[in-house]
Amino acid sequence: MLRFVINKQEFSKKISVAAQAVGSKTVDPILQCLLFKPENDSIKVFSTDMQTFVVAKLDVNEFDGSDSFAVDAKLLEEIVKNIDEDEIVLEYNLGKLNVRSGKTAFNLTTYSNPEKFPPLEFEKTGINFEIETSILSEMIDKVIFCASTETAMRALNGVYWEIKDKFLRLVASDGYRLALVEQKVDVEAEIDFIISLKSMKELQNMLSGADEPVVKITCDNKKMAINSGDITVITRVVEEVFPDYKRVLPKAFKTRITFNKSEFLEALKRNMIIAKRGNDKVRLEITDNSMILTSQSPEFGEVREELNIEKEGEDLIINFNPRFLNEAVKNVDEEEIVFNFVDELSPMQVNSKDVGGYLYIVLPVRA
Amino acid sequence: MLRFVINKQEFSKKISVAAQAVGSKTVDPILQCLLFKPENDSIKVFSTDMQTFVVAKLDVNEFDGSDSFAVDAKLLEEIVKNIDEDEIVLEYNLGKLNVRSGKTAFNLTTYSNPEKFPPLEFEKTGINFEIETSILSEMIDKVIFCASTETAMRALNGVYWEIKDKFLRLVASDGYRLALVEQKVDVEAEIDFIISLKSMKELQNMLSGADEPVVKITCDNKKMAINSGDITVITRVVEEVFPDYKRVLPKAFKTRITFNKSEFLEALKRNMIIAKRGNDKVRLEITDNSMILTSQSPEFGEVREELNIEKEGEDLIINFNPRFLNEAVKNVDEEEIVFNFVDELSPMQVNSKDVGGYLYIVLPVRA
Repeated sequence: MLRFVINKQEFSKKISVAAQAVGSKTVDPILQCLLFKPENDSIKVFSTDMQTFVVAKLDVNEFDGSDSFAVDAKLLEEIVKNIDEDEIVLEYNLGKLNVRSGKTAFNLTTYSNPEKFPPLEFEKTGINFEIETSILSEMIDKVIFCASTETAMRALNGVYWEIKDKFLRLVASDGYRLALVEQKVDVEAEIDFIISLKSMKELQNMLSGADEPVVKITCDNKKMAINSGDITVITRVVEEVFPDYKRVLPKAFKTRITFNKSEFLEALKRNMIIAKRGNDKVRLEITDNSMILTSQSPEFGEVREELNIEKEGEDLIINFNPRFLNEAVKNVDEEEIVFNFVDELSPMQVNSKDVGGYLYIVLPVRA
Repeated sequence: MLRFVINKQEFSKKISVAAQAVGSKTVDPILQCLLFKPENDSIKVFSTDMQTFVVAKLDVNEFDGSDSFAVDAKLLEEIVKNIDEDEIVLEYNLGKLNVRSGKTAFNLTTYSNPEKFPPLEFEKTGINFEIETSILSEMIDKVIFCASTETAMRALNGVYWEIKDKFLRLVASDGYRLALVEQKVDVEAEIDFIISLKSMKELQNMLSGADEPVVKITCDNKKMAINSGDITVITRVVEEVFPDYKRVLPKAFKTRITFNKSEFLEALKRNMIIAKRGNDKVRLEITDNSMILTSQSPEFGEVREELNIEKEGEDLIINFNPRFLNEAVKNVDEEEIVFNFVDELSPMQVNSKDVGGYLYIVLPVRA
């Protein structure tokens, strides 16, 4: 038997983070469950897809009994979300979980062998540091869209973490573009590892619901653990080598232009209407004070936009995938954007005019 | 040559309604175009999928030339939506359409034989009446979701219009349920016809953007035309016979219950969490002052909800597809809902307690 009474909001928040980490259509149905387990006078919820482990301590109002049980995560998450009352009573007995609230009563089948739930192997060793929750969340947002979505490319299907020279750097790349964001952290040691894209999304989800202003990170060569208040997410690192991103960063530029972010995004948006009906290219023609954006579609016609810019260095004509430019510029927070070019075949660097800490490198396409 | 200058909002509104009516992936590319044609000192836009015809008169600022041209509807709609300036200049010359606004210039390919655009066959004969735009729009909303989406069932894949006894009635059914809405109109004649589901959606779209408080309807046995200000939508009727809906309407009831709409929808929502993981059924157990809703899933368990009701007549146990109940009750505007039952195998009637003009009939499922 295990019985506890819990506030709906509290319960919903915790199990949503845990439910995010369950395996999708896995062979083993217990990986689609949440495990509830009484431990040291409180109840903990566990979930895992064998790559990421989530542990959340529940803040319960009443609590009685010592049994553990495992129940389908998505089902329980949906039930709790749809309960209107503030208080929920959960009572597990002889394989059945009773969920009651007001005039609502669910009687749920549980997983028959909760003791088979994979144990959490986690030692609190390794490098420790803290970072503001909102800063880490923003850093992840600024690089995650660049990661390759092809699971076969294991090294690129994730985000590279590098702790070095008292900086935390996150880097992601799909081979065509690369995003890098960095932030000072208070740690002497050096370490680097890759976290898979799926785990990164689970982290992002946990951070977006976190109440604590600061998260605590513990990492070694095998795993990274992030703790925020009652919730800890532990992630196995991907055992691959990330390409040397410093080799990609351009060293000397021949052309540098500065322009207004919103005006550029508007002009690019209209270019994309034609580009997506054609060869998915936008051509930038850069001369003094002016950048002309054109796209063509053999079937539908063409579009031409003109933008005021400030230019240093040589004139240039260069072609890009417009979606890659759009995602790069959207993720710079400032209104003044800088494009740095070497030539029409070399990677171009995007950054904000005034604020450091974020870089985006994108390969041009051939005309 | 044809050149005109037009306000962006005005242009966007008119071509959005027209673009809605074009054929989807049709064999004939001209049916994916909008035809622009100068007529009687103004410019008209035409579109059709050969089932629905849309004609809109443009309110232009300047206008010059006498050529007609046809251009891809979705492309032009997307371009106009994404223009930021208030004024747009369109200039057609020698097969090319130039669309300019501020520093933006599109040069679009047009359809090479605009004269091949299907002519609009429309005589303004038949029965005429007027109805408030918002009332007609609401009437359509209340029945359209019941129409069958199977295009093979031509008679049910649409909405039945009946003008009789000075009432306009709209009826839709998919064979399992039926919705009927009626409204007094000022017309002596009697007529009935079916309008296809696709045409009904185009009508709905036109009505939702209409500025005029009243629409004018002209119909005969071949077509229905709805006019709102500068826009007219003409629809061919479906040449099929709609089943006699009056035969389905239950005559005498043995059980009648009244209950609160929101409470019912909440209880049903939680039943659906289990029902969709099981056999998609909700069981209603009706006794004095109480209705118990239960759903079961062999794999996941069961749910039970209790609701206060007022009952007249006999106790009853009856099963339904919960989605059909949800859609029925959501579409009743009042907070007090009435279910009228004959027995556990006969159609059940849903209506509001106080307001007439809307009925919903739904077949139970076997236990």
